[in-house]
Amino acid sequence: MRLRKKPWAHEYMAKFPNVVSENPSANQGRWREYFQQEGPLHVEVGTGKGRFITEMARQHPDILFIGVEKYSSVLVTGVQRVEGNPPANLRLIEADVNDIEDLFTPREIDRLYINFTDPWPKKRHAKRRLTHGDFLQKYDRVLTDDGEIHFKTDNQGLFEYSLGSMSQHGLAFKNVSLDLHRSDVKHNVMTEYEEKFAGKGMRIYRLEAYRHTL
Amino acid sequence: MRLRKKPWAHEYMAKFPNVVSENPSANQGRWREYFQQEGPLHVEVGTGKGRFITEMARQHPDILFIGVEKYSSVLVTGVQRVEGNPPANLRLIEADVNDIEDLFTPREIDRLYINFTDPWPKKRHAKRRLTHGDFLQKYDRVLTDDGEIHFKTDNQGLFEYSLGSMSQHGLAFKNVSLDLHRSDVKHNVMTEYEEKFAGKGMRIYRLEAYRHTL
Repeated sequence: MRLRKKPWAHEYMAKFPNVVSENPSANQGRWREYFQQEGPLHVEVGTGKGRFITEMARQHPDILFIGVEKYSSVLVTGVQRVEGNPPANLRLIEADVNDIEDLFTPREIDRLYINFTDPWPKKRHAKRRLTHGDFLQKYDRVLTDDGEIHFKTDNQGLFEYSLGSMSQHGLAFKNVSLDLHRSDVKHNVMTEYEEKFAGKGMRIYRLEAYRHTL
Repeated sequence: MRLRKKPWAHEYMAKFPNVVSENPSANQGRWREYFQQEGPLHVEVGTGKGRFITEMARQHPDILFIGVEKYSSVLVTGVQRVEGNPPANLRLIEADVNDIEDLFTPREIDRLYINFTDPWPKKRHAKRRLTHGDFLQKYDRVLTDDGEIHFKTDNQGLFEYSLGSMSQHGLAFKNVSLDLHRSDVKHNVMTEYEEKFAGKGMRIYRLEAYRHTL
């Protein structure tokens, strides 16, 4: 997506501590304490404008949701969306996914969502894909033993790549769909991108990955 | 496919011992001796009329190829196709894939091909799919340590299922293609089905699976 500079974004977000966690690494290892709520912790990396994670938070008040996004200029739109009526079980974080281990302690996350992330189609950019092995190793450390990664994309090349990289890192798949919107999957919460792409009849690819137990 | 009864098939095939191995379990563990040729052993399960395996055998004279097919009425067509000019490195076998361990000793096969196998779409028939866990366990025993399974199908549901079942059995994927005929994969030998389906613009799904080494 095209990024517009929004120099006011930081200052703006600081006004909504019940939406944005301004110093998230201070909460590392004690997110439930911070939320003052027990329950599973679900994290979306590359949360963008936060529509998916916000809707999930509204639908599942017993689960804690955190959306991580690198660009404040994008994240601030998510803040503006929820600031009037923020779910108590949601926080948005401005951070680089590379630093996910500064945000969460080992085995702190129950589920990770990766939705419509940048495919970085050029081979020399493969390391930037959020399903690259280097990222998977980091996820591996912060996910619980039976933690899951739920991944969807409209990008065929990224999905093909991710099937390889995830399986090569000891992950097994379940509930794979190669055409989500023409399958019988229920309870799918759409991202902003997804609505646009699926509306054009394009395929959405989806999988759930977990450590296999051979 | 619709099966026509061909009561003459057995007798017919027996006339071509240089095409059909009539008592294949006698060659278990000594296929290279039987072929009087060294080299990797590649086996196609559910070989049908044998077009794929025959073409592969012609293109790769240094590799030994065996096609396994349950139905003599289908296999005999493959025999008729090659009987005039049979490749020395090819044999066809009438056998049930369930009995693959009677045909090959542990670690005897270097590569297994599964092409356009019956998807058995009903859940209660899942055990009949050639990518079901029960079959994968058998393949696991007859494949070499770095053995591979190369799988292609036009059936979306079967491919989704197989991504799950294979990954859950410790297999990793490489060279995944979710639209083989609109990708840059080279040297693809087409099956009879494949030519028909791809010609209609339908997607062909393909993957290569191997034991991952975490």
